Amino acid sequence: MTEAVQQPEPDVRSLTVGVFGGTGAQGKGLAYRWAKAGVKVVIGSRDAARAEAAAAELAQLTGGDVTGADNASCAASSDVVLVAVPWDAHAKTLEPLRDALAGKIVVDCVNPLGFDKKGPYALPVEEGSAAQQAEALLPESRVTAAFHHVSAVLLADPEVAEVDIDVLVLGDDRGATDTVRALADLVPGMRGVFGGRLRNAGQVEAFTANLIAINKRYKAHAGVRITDV
Amino acid sequence: MTEAVQQPEPDVRSLTVGVFGGTGAQGKGLAYRWAKAGVKVVIGSRDAARAEAAAAELAQLTGGDVTGADNASCAASSDVVLVAVPWDAHAKTLEPLRDALAGKIVVDCVNPLGFDKKGPYALPVEEGSAAQQAEALLPESRVTAAFHHVSAVLLADPEVAEVDIDVLVLGDDRGATDTVRALADLVPGMRGVFGGRLRNAGQVEAFTANLIAINKRYKAHAGVRITDV
Repeated sequence: MTEAVQQPEPDVRSLTVGVFGGTGAQGKGLAYRWAKAGVKVVIGSRDAARAEAAAAELAQLTGGDVTGADNASCAASSDVVLVAVPWDAHAKTLEPLRDALAGKIVVDCVNPLGFDKKGPYALPVEEGSAAQQAEALLPESRVTAAFHHVSAVLLADPEVAEVDIDVLVLGDDRGATDTVRALADLVPGMRGVFGGRLRNAGQVEAFTANLIAINKRYKAHAGVRITDV
Repeated sequence: MTEAVQQPEPDVRSLTVGVFGGTGAQGKGLAYRWAKAGVKVVIGSRDAARAEAAAAELAQLTGGDVTGADNASCAASSDVVLVAVPWDAHAKTLEPLRDALAGKIVVDCVNPLGFDKKGPYALPVEEGSAAQQAEALLPESRVTAAFHHVSAVLLADPEVAEVDIDVLVLGDDRGATDTVRALADLVPGMRGVFGGRLRNAGQVEAFTANLIAINKRYKAHAGVRITDV
């Protein structure tokens, strides 16, 4: 658990984190963990009323500062935005928010996967990955990719005190990846590890298909730890 | 470390394991570990003399049964063959050995990667992955994919008593993946974990680019462990 170069942790507790798709399992689970850690969270959704309902639930569960809004208002009031929408809503969610997300850190955790009778598999993505699609649609944002492998079931379970996983954080902007790593470190058990440039995000997204296959074989909620780091 | 279903371990110590590219770092490192564990190993190379020299060195180091041969003889005398050749030699090594490898377990550990001034990246592969290319070229073999992420440096270092890594084993043939998992389990510290069907091998191969980026950032020999399995 030692790093060759010790970096000062960015003061992420003062940031406001927006969560697009914060009414879905993955987004809501991460929002829950961040709110519990004392981070101000804005749940985003196409439907402001659904976002407000999910936010009220999380505020009550955690005692934290959680509000809800439509995606555009969520973007406007956040410093960092997690994109946790289904893959088929990815492009159409981000496209109209180019200006609202300019200058902000965007964290893409979307896994473009298909399922058939043989199980999960990686879908081809023209841009190379969901994260690279986000980068193409949001040229003025600081796009990173992270939180692909975290089990929504474990995140949502209040009995799970520590989430036993390394979060691979990818991106070409060192300040942005450091901030996102620090957001991962806020969750007990979780650790943010730099995972490479954004052009290497495709295989991290696709690897979620392998974890689903592992979960099925071993009846587990599998995650990844990086050794020797 | 519990599995939902306990499988009897195949008796892999009685198998002969061939290693194509056994004179290279990755192949030689794994051959060293298997020979040390008491497995009969045949080093394969285009050049029989180089294979014999590497085998003599490993036999002396380990006291094990290690011989060398050209790839065709190596294939003929092995039950399981590890393919550990450079990506640009992959197709041309396998193509002429279709008959010699019929019915045998083939373990592909090849990572199709490119490098430029920004570091490593995954190369596109027409068949989807090196392992799927092997499957296409060797339709009568039992093709699996494994050992992509093991550090050649750690494998070769006699001071490293335990190799701290999970080996993801992919394939559609349950008996073959069980055998390969057992071969991983023979190396102290190493654990074989089923990692999905062969169609999900591409992202496991490509993930080696991320591990190389992690190694550079953290000055590490990074590997992967799967949690909750």
